[in-house]
Amino acid sequence: MAIVGDTEPTGAPAADQAVVALEQADNPSSPVVRFGPDRPLLLDSGKRLNHLQIAYQTYGTLNEARSNAILLCHALTGDQHACNRHPVTGKPGWWTEMVGPGKAIDTDRYFIICTNVLGGCMGTTGPATTDPETGEPYGLGLPVITVGDMVRAQAMLLDQLGIETLFCVAGGSMGGMQVLQWAATYPERVFSALPIAAGARHSSQNIAFHEVGRQAVMADPEWRGGRYLLDDTSPRKGLAVARMAAHVTYLSEQALHRKFGRNLQDRDKPTFGFDADFQIESYLRHQGMTFVERFDANSYLYLTRAMDYFDLAEDYGGRLANAFRGSKTRFCVVSFTSDWLFPTVENKAVVRALNAAGASVSFVEIDTDRGHDAFLLNEPEMFDTIRGFLSSAAYARGIA
Amino acid sequence: MAIVGDTEPTGAPAADQAVVALEQADNPSSPVVRFGPDRPLLLDSGKRLNHLQIAYQTYGTLNEARSNAILLCHALTGDQHACNRHPVTGKPGWWTEMVGPGKAIDTDRYFIICTNVLGGCMGTTGPATTDPETGEPYGLGLPVITVGDMVRAQAMLLDQLGIETLFCVAGGSMGGMQVLQWAATYPERVFSALPIAAGARHSSQNIAFHEVGRQAVMADPEWRGGRYLLDDTSPRKGLAVARMAAHVTYLSEQALHRKFGRNLQDRDKPTFGFDADFQIESYLRHQGMTFVERFDANSYLYLTRAMDYFDLAEDYGGRLANAFRGSKTRFCVVSFTSDWLFPTVENKAVVRALNAAGASVSFVEIDTDRGHDAFLLNEPEMFDTIRGFLSSAAYARGIA
Repeated sequence: MAIVGDTEPTGAPAADQAVVALEQADNPSSPVVRFGPDRPLLLDSGKRLNHLQIAYQTYGTLNEARSNAILLCHALTGDQHACNRHPVTGKPGWWTEMVGPGKAIDTDRYFIICTNVLGGCMGTTGPATTDPETGEPYGLGLPVITVGDMVRAQAMLLDQLGIETLFCVAGGSMGGMQVLQWAATYPERVFSALPIAAGARHSSQNIAFHEVGRQAVMADPEWRGGRYLLDDTSPRKGLAVARMAAHVTYLSEQALHRKFGRNLQDRDKPTFGFDADFQIESYLRHQGMTFVERFDANSYLYLTRAMDYFDLAEDYGGRLANAFRGSKTRFCVVSFTSDWLFPTVENKAVVRALNAAGASVSFVEIDTDRGHDAFLLNEPEMFDTIRGFLSSAAYARGIA
Repeated sequence: MAIVGDTEPTGAPAADQAVVALEQADNPSSPVVRFGPDRPLLLDSGKRLNHLQIAYQTYGTLNEARSNAILLCHALTGDQHACNRHPVTGKPGWWTEMVGPGKAIDTDRYFIICTNVLGGCMGTTGPATTDPETGEPYGLGLPVITVGDMVRAQAMLLDQLGIETLFCVAGGSMGGMQVLQWAATYPERVFSALPIAAGARHSSQNIAFHEVGRQAVMADPEWRGGRYLLDDTSPRKGLAVARMAAHVTYLSEQALHRKFGRNLQDRDKPTFGFDADFQIESYLRHQGMTFVERFDANSYLYLTRAMDYFDLAEDYGGRLANAFRGSKTRFCVVSFTSDWLFPTVENKAVVRALNAAGASVSFVEIDTDRGHDAFLLNEPEMFDTIRGFLSSAAYARGIA
């Protein structure tokens, strides 16, 4: 049986995006697989999830050999809608530059699966999901999850879909962390791996910025100890501040200078006030305001926490190479010159460990001034690199 | 008449620091000079301040020729207490490493003046000061001020003290901005100038981080549109988040890695929760909590805004060199290799402009991993540089 993807999500974006977004947590406009207490997910914290639902999108067609499946792993604020119209915002998916017919990740050639991550808010179990045992949203009752937990949940979905081996696992940022975790946990299921703008651990500075964001959310009285959904409210202002702080780290100083500089907003002289006077202020406020229309604040806490806890070497006796010993997976590591969140040095640490483990690895540093978010943008050198890597791997894998 | 300084502020720190801090706004434990409507301060915004008070500290002795006065300009969250015990926190002043008997800025040799900046909250007119015309705190009723306004207010104080020429103006970060502004506005009053870790303008990224902080303050419902003092409350949580975000930018990734790394807080394993699990989280929370005990939230808005507006070239026809044409001031510009808030490239832009203007300038980049805050720390190479620069200038100035 060939699985055919390209499912456009059902439902149109409504006027009140926040309401639509909240509905997605339980009833996403994507296919969903549900697991019950007979198939609990054991978590790294030692706790277990007796109920698990996973929402996903697919694009392209699984071949008869089931050998052409690529799993896309999304970043902190992404979701399963990689290259279809987003059911809440109505905008194109987050990786439409990269994924599609004839694109670097070619949906005419490969079968693409993208799941909403565990802890997310677009249909996979997360803090906004209704706990079947209480009938209320999990909120902070959901156990804290890790990148390892996310990957084991994805593996359960693939089992269900009958996909034993992935031709490739690909993703940027937190998605890249999942790629590395996949390669470490299930080396025999991963033919090739493409971690982009990622690292094998979260740095002290990255933890610091995440903590600022979490404190901004939790400082908002509307957060109500995490129980805001029960009161039909949400910490919108706090979450917007968290998003603004994080967004600065996704860009580079050079890109900000080029895009905004010190340009004022529709005027020649400053207003000498506290409204958005500079274009960069207005841009950031817009980023904050639109984000809260589509994202759950508790999800933000859980996913930043999962990233903070990520330290792959720590799980393998303090030596990163041990995570990849004997691996037959082909790796391509991609970094960006102007990324200061996951700078090249962190990506190179992964490359060094892969080399030390005797794994097959190529490494490309893309010259760009667009910072961490370059993995989402039109970067032709990145596309050429990935297209070439996948074509060569496809040949080795016998994919037509 | 020789002015002798070293005034220890009166009053001991009390249990409720926030109350003590608030009292400082009107009745500081420092000397104060007050100006009335007969001597209004004209502001860059076009508005005027009919009442102005300036709080200051002095250290050392003014010589008979009145030629050995050094003005210290403090940074965003500093104040006039450069090297005495702080009347609110009870801790040593912010520049005790640099300033004192026998130190690089030697109080045995020079007469040091440090004023609380206009817009501050330690006794110089700022939003927490009582407006004599209403009997209530200015709050957002205070006109927005600029670095130029700060400097003109300082000049009024010096006139009052009978100090015509400054042997040196020195300061780091926002203090360095004031130094550059002094040299541009009053070249004949500044014999030497020492801007440290500063730039001639605030970059887009710096404006972005400030805007995050302001939004954090204004998102706190206790901010109450800036009128919180009237309600005997304050936006403590929002200000703490703002401070946390800013504090990350004052350090370097390397310093954070060296000091905290991914070390957990007093335990071997993560708690899988949202308490401060990593040492860096606990450190940041502490920074946020202690800051709100001594600083006014509206002051934070005003001073960050003044920094954002700073663009010295803009005031001189778009060409920075024009700000320094014909200047006889001797400059020493100091930057730090790991400072990403005011990176060396911004400091060098000042040096280039000074060279283009034919000014006397030396430039030193200090090799350190401590980031922007290095100007406050024990950096022997910085001390040697500044000691040498001042000694040479003192010889030229005829100071014994």
